[in-house]
Order: sequence, then structure tokens, then C-alpha cells
Amino acid sequence: MEQVKFILDEKEIPQYWYNIQADLPEPLPPSLHPGTKKPLMPEDLAPLFPMELIKQEVSTERYIEIPDEVRSIYRLWRPTTLFRARRLEKALKTPAKIYYKYEGSSPPGSHKINTAVAQAYYNKKEGINRISTETGAGQWGSALAFAGACFDIEVKVYMVKISYNQKPYRRVMMQVWGADCIPSPSEQTKAGRAILSRDPDCPGSLGLAISEAVEEAVSREDTHYSLGSVLNHVLLHQTVIGQETKKTLEKINEYPDIIIGCVGGGSNFAGMFLPFIKDKIDGTYPDLRIINVEPASCPTLTRGPYRYDFGDEAGMTPLMKMYTLGHGFIPPPVHAGGLRYHGMAPIICHLLNLGLVEARAEQQLGTFQAGVDFARSEGIISAPEADHAIRATIDEAIKCRESGEAKTILLALSGHGHVDMAAYQAYFDGKLKDHEYSQDKIEQALHDLPKV
Amino acid sequence: MEQVKFILDEKEIPQYWYNIQADLPEPLPPSLHPGTKKPLMPEDLAPLFPMELIKQEVSTERYIEIPDEVRSIYRLWRPTTLFRARRLEKALKTPAKIYYKYEGSSPPGSHKINTAVAQAYYNKKEGINRISTETGAGQWGSALAFAGACFDIEVKVYMVKISYNQKPYRRVMMQVWGADCIPSPSEQTKAGRAILSRDPDCPGSLGLAISEAVEEAVSREDTHYSLGSVLNHVLLHQTVIGQETKKTLEKINEYPDIIIGCVGGGSNFAGMFLPFIKDKIDGTYPDLRIINVEPASCPTLTRGPYRYDFGDEAGMTPLMKMYTLGHGFIPPPVHAGGLRYHGMAPIICHLLNLGLVEARAEQQLGTFQAGVDFARSEGIISAPEADHAIRATIDEAIKCRESGEAKTILLALSGHGHVDMAAYQAYFDGKLKDHEYSQDKIEQALHDLPKV
Repeated sequence: MEQVKFILDEKEIPQYWYNIQADLPEPLPPSLHPGTKKPLMPEDLAPLFPMELIKQEVSTERYIEIPDEVRSIYRLWRPTTLFRARRLEKALKTPAKIYYKYEGSSPPGSHKINTAVAQAYYNKKEGINRISTETGAGQWGSALAFAGACFDIEVKVYMVKISYNQKPYRRVMMQVWGADCIPSPSEQTKAGRAILSRDPDCPGSLGLAISEAVEEAVSREDTHYSLGSVLNHVLLHQTVIGQETKKTLEKINEYPDIIIGCVGGGSNFAGMFLPFIKDKIDGTYPDLRIINVEPASCPTLTRGPYRYDFGDEAGMTPLMKMYTLGHGFIPPPVHAGGLRYHGMAPIICHLLNLGLVEARAEQQLGTFQAGVDFARSEGIISAPEADHAIRATIDEAIKCRESGEAKTILLALSGHGHVDMAAYQAYFDGKLKDHEYSQDKIEQALHDLPKV
Repeated sequence: MEQVKFILDEKEIPQYWYNIQADLPEPLPPSLHPGTKKPLMPEDLAPLFPMELIKQEVSTERYIEIPDEVRSIYRLWRPTTLFRARRLEKALKTPAKIYYKYEGSSPPGSHKINTAVAQAYYNKKEGINRISTETGAGQWGSALAFAGACFDIEVKVYMVKISYNQKPYRRVMMQVWGADCIPSPSEQTKAGRAILSRDPDCPGSLGLAISEAVEEAVSREDTHYSLGSVLNHVLLHQTVIGQETKKTLEKINEYPDIIIGCVGGGSNFAGMFLPFIKDKIDGTYPDLRIINVEPASCPTLTRGPYRYDFGDEAGMTPLMKMYTLGHGFIPPPVHAGGLRYHGMAPIICHLLNLGLVEARAEQQLGTFQAGVDFARSEGIISAPEADHAIRATIDEAIKCRESGEAKTILLALSGHGHVDMAAYQAYFDGKLKDHEYSQDKIEQALHDLPKV
């Protein structure tokens, strides 16, 4: 009986995060102050983030040590399992070898905890005992709530109101871990009060929740802000995923031909592929293919221009150079909520622009079908976000069946779908449809971009 | 940094199930035909179960080989992890050592899959391609649905109607794995139609759903029935849990002083403790304590008489000798749905009657508090059922703090609570209360018991 699970020892949890900024062929374009349009200075971010994270954001050190206190928490669920998808390969009748790295075994159920724990630690170390953040469907909020419990930090989560009402389970998870989660817009900030006075029934949006959380951090000495994706230091923390995977594959003499993952802000997939792309950049594995999969209804990488844009809807954050659909773009309410972001991690955008990675858009119905097929072979019911990567993985495996090539495909499986079964229910009830992105909207995005 | 997770190799998945019936100091009282009151014959069960399971039900062979096809599916999530609860020990300031075996990493999220896969396999082997069953809150139904996907068996689940409506996520999971799940009472059986004609708005009950599922199996040549707990063969299959745990503890030179688990039908905890109780019976570890924890609102072991009773509400199943609250007893609607059963596995009852195990009842509010405390230390949010065992574990650890004894406590953690967050929500909203069991109800139970 052949092995299906490959698990490293706890001692093999990486001791360092890997920083791609040490190995980029060209440096990342800097982020800009939203007012002055000049490169951001550390002091610009000091009201929001601890100094250690600000340093990590711009560092070009190749390896940054993971503090023992963080590794100690990682022990609760890391190293995560790398599976060989033997049953899926058999069902697809493909000669391809499919491996998937499953981050769904963490207590909150996805990869986001890898950075939440680090961010909570650095805040605590610098004397901050309170963090505010936003969350849409709740995955990021739960991760930070758990991290807060680990380091005895008060966590305040602004949750997009419509999600707060529709998806109570995530906020209850936050409550179990001791966080305070309130619906946004709220009466607790100027931003929230402003919206509520105009539109008392406003269902909320991620951009508005960001504005509330940032305002809380800026207006209180004792509170910092925390972001779950996009930023360089977040992707840095996620490289535990790819480093563990590389080590595990080395032990069984394997190396991927293709690496596939879903991208919303980009932190899960970058966490997987950055340790591998080092090998592509330095010429060891020049033909390595890295495929970023996004929803066709929010086709940031496949249709957006590569321009400086705000990270949030209101235009309060720094300007980052990203493939963007325009900070005013509101994606259709597809169920893969974690992928509904107008922009993308600048690191991923830079690599796409350099031609080192690829992007692909998937329509939502096909992703749910892929998720169902995967579950019937491998058991795991994945998060709707991860289903986008499963779709592309199955398609690549089918291409291998047709061509006869026995490629090695590595899938980054970001999380489970236990708390997202309403999405699968809507799929089975025939309530979902594929979306088309309209040319009008692309042009509108170009008009709304800030001039730098 | 001390190790917290202890994981066996896939090759160490047990090759045999352990059958306590080989080592009981006195044999189990036989189950009786509900009509004749004579001991059940194999042919009585043949319309419902495959012959191999009927043989397992009465076998006294000490070790029964686990088929390769079953071990092959077990590989997807087994061996499961044994955790050392270092953070919980620290939070409780206890000298006790706490280990927990976590079954929540299986695809459906609990231990029930260990028997579902075996039962599906034996049915398929004997040419049965269709299985009917009942489910309350959905944990058993999802487990059998997944097993059906593994062996290409059609699975039909009758789900208690009120749960079908209140807990849609479990039935969607069943749908992902390809099962057909309908609310009970339904128009599809005589039993269902009879109830609906009297009471069209009947919310359903587990007993009624059992009646529908059994009727379907009895009335169709192509369909067998499957039960998720209580029966000897089910407990047999669950012994993979205890055997893995014993082996893992041996490797680190540990042996428990106390083993604690929650009991509804009893299969999870029996699966943990049966391989250990062998050592108590043969005198190797005579002082081993085994504590069965049940809800105070359904105190089968702590308050029920030890008598022959039906397994279902309608009185259709065989009579089994059990601690029972009477087959007509409807437990209060506590959220630990998996523990709301009027009876208990005959094996556990026999061992309790022989004084080899103990029983304890817990009130529900304390169990949720224990679950929250556990989650804030260890991360995992447990199923409300498992919270009963966590409560008792924390209490025993506190006793150790007070006495200074460094006992080794082993906790059977049956599953996660991701799909039960509504229960935690009700707890936080102050909507739950502790229940009292009334003396009147005990006496009513004594009147309703069948005469044998």
C-alpha cells in the first residue's frame, strides 16, 4: 500500500522565513504615500504596524529568523501534510503525479494563521496589546482571533455587515477565541457613522471595514492594525508553506513541473511558490511553471492593467503597484469571498510582469464541480477559493492524460470548506451562474486609477 | 521546544481490529429477537446487514483482520494525531500530563468514518450497492456518504426533519459526497406516511428516522441498513483509535492513569478504551480508570436501570441489555446531539455493570465553558459532544493540581465543532441552560421497559 501522506517532524518546521526580495531580478517598485505620492517611509506606517514588520516589509535579507515563540505556536498544527492524490489520479486516469499541501488542518481552517501568529507576536513584543482588523467572510478575523488568544492580545474585528449576518459561524469562532467582532459599518468610527447617516441599511464592504479598522488603530495609541494578505511581510510569513513542501519533496526525490494555487490577495499561493521560484530565477529549474488562478468574475491578473492603485476602496492606504481592476471595482458576490479583491500582492504582480509566473481565470461553476470531484476522490471538502486551484489542477492532469506526459503537479490547498457549505448548497440548488467581465468596467477602472 | 504532536507512520495503521469479546470476564448478554424474546439468530439480521458484520457482532476472535481496502481508505487521514496538551496544562497550572487523540481530522470531521468505511466495504464485497441509514444532526450521515463515495455505493440518508432544516451544512456535505439525504418523516415509507397523516408538521425524531431507514432496507432486496454506534461490530471497528494510541504512548514510554471520553452510543470512547481495558482485565494495569462522560440531561449510565430495551423508539429493533432511560425517553434538545440517546452500547453497559469502568454526568453549560477554555489554549474548537469529555478532563487535571499528583490523563477527542458553531452561539447568547432529570421520568422509564 503506497504512502499518501508525507509529514515532516515538528523539529523540521522552518527556522527562517524566506524573503524573495533578496533574489528578485529587479527590485520591487516601492509603495507610495497616498498624499505625497513619494515612496513610503517607515514612520508613515508606525501608527499601524510594529517596527519589526515595517522592517520586514522592505528588507532584502534572504532569510529572516522565525522567533521561537512563533514556531512554538506553529507546532500546534505544523508541519502540515503533503498528500499524494493517488485516488484523484486514478479517477482522472492521468499519468500525472499530483501532490497537495493542505493548510486546512490549522485550528481556524486555513493558511491565514501563519501570518496572524507572527503579527500578534511582534505586536506583543513591542508592547502593543490590542489589534484591530477587518474581515469579510471571517477567515482572516478568526485567524487573528486565535493568534490573539495565543499571545493574550485583545482583538477587535470589523466584519462586513452582510457577512456578519449571513455567516454567523465565523464570528462565533472569533468569540470562542476571545475576540470582539462587530458588524461594519458601525457607530464606533467616524467612517462608519458617516456611512450610516447616509445609508442606515448599508450592507457594508471590505473597503469600508478596512477604513473602520484603520481609523481605530490610528486614533488609539494602544491599538495597531493587522492585514491578512497582499503586503510583503505577510507573504514572507507564509513561506513556511513552500519551504516545508520543498523539504518534503526533496526527501522523496520529487520536484514539481507545475505549481498551482488560488489567488485573492495572494498570500497563500506566494507562500507556497516563493521558495520554489528562487530555483527558477537562479536557473536551477528554468522551466518551472507557476500558475496563479483567479475567479473570472474578478480577473485582476488576467485583465487588469499594471498600475499604482490604493489597497482599499476609500483611498486611504498607500499606493502599491499592482495588477488592478481599480480600487472602486466591486466584484460580483461570488462565494469564493477570499478571492474578491480588486488588487493583488505587489510581489506576485512584479513576478507576473517579469514573466516568471502565469495567471489563469476560472469561471465559478467549473470550480465547484472540481471541488466536488476532488472531495469524492480525496475526501477533503475544500474552501470555494481553493476550488479554483483544484479546477486548474484537474485540467492540467487531464492534459497529461491526453499528451501522455507524467508531469508532477503541486497544488496549494489553502483551506477547508466546512464553514462555507452554503456556497456548495447554492451550487447544488442551481443558484449560481458564471459571470462575464465587461469591457466597460475595464475602461472605468483605467479612469479611476490615481495619477502618480 | 518540546514535541506536542505524536504521529505514527501510515504503515502503523493497525492491521487488526481488537475484539473485547475475546477477553470479557463474563460473556455479553445476548441480544434478543423483539418478537420471540429469544436470542437473535444470524438470519434475523440478514435482511439488514452483510454476513461478515453479523459474524463480527457475535465473534469471540481476539483480532479480526482489517481488509486492505479499508486500510487503504484509512490512509487518507489515519493514523490520527495524539497531542500533548502542554498549553492547557500550563493554563491549568496542573502537574498532570494531558494527551488527547483527535479524530476531527477525518474528512467528515469525527470518528464515525472509521466504521462507515468498514461497513461500506463489507456490503460492497457481498454485492450490496445501496445502503440506507438515519442521521440526527448529520455526523453519521456524512460519514456514511463519504464511505459510499469511496466504494461506489449509493447511500440514502433519512435525516431528522428539524435538523435537516436547522443544520443544512451537514446535508450539503452528504450531497458533495454523492449521497441522497431527505428529511424524515417522509412520504417514502409506510412509517413516515403514517406519522405525516396524523401530524403533517412533525419535526421528526431519531427513532422515527431509524424506522424509515430500516423499513427501506427490509423492503428492498438491493438495500442494506447501517448503524453508526451501539452495536458490537461498530465498537470493534473503532478500536483503531485505541490501538494507535497505545502504540504511540508505548513509543514515548507512557501509559494513562485515567482515560476520559464522551458517550452517546459509545462507539468513539469504546474505540479508545477497549484496547486499554484488556490490560486492566488481565491484571497488568488494575488501577486504570476509565470514565464515560454523558450529558446530565440524558444520564443513561448514571441514572438508568440495566435492563433489556429496544434500540429505537418504535420498538422494531432487537432487544439489547443496556443502561437505559426507556426507549420512549426523548432527551431535552441539548446541542450535543450525538449524545442524546436513550441507551448505550451493550459492551460499555456490561463493563460498567462489572465495575470495570465508571460513568459521570455533566451539565451542559460547564461543558461549553470547558470547550472554550480548551480552544483558547490548544486551538481546536471541539464538537459539543467532545466538550463533555473536556470538562471531565479539566476537572481531573484540577484535582491533580490540588493533590499534587502528576497523573497521566488521556482524552478521546471525537471531533471538531466547525459545523456546530450554532451551539456555541447559543451558549454565548445565554440561551442555554442546565437541565435537571426528574425522578418521575425515571419511574416512567421503568414502566415502559419490555418484559423479557
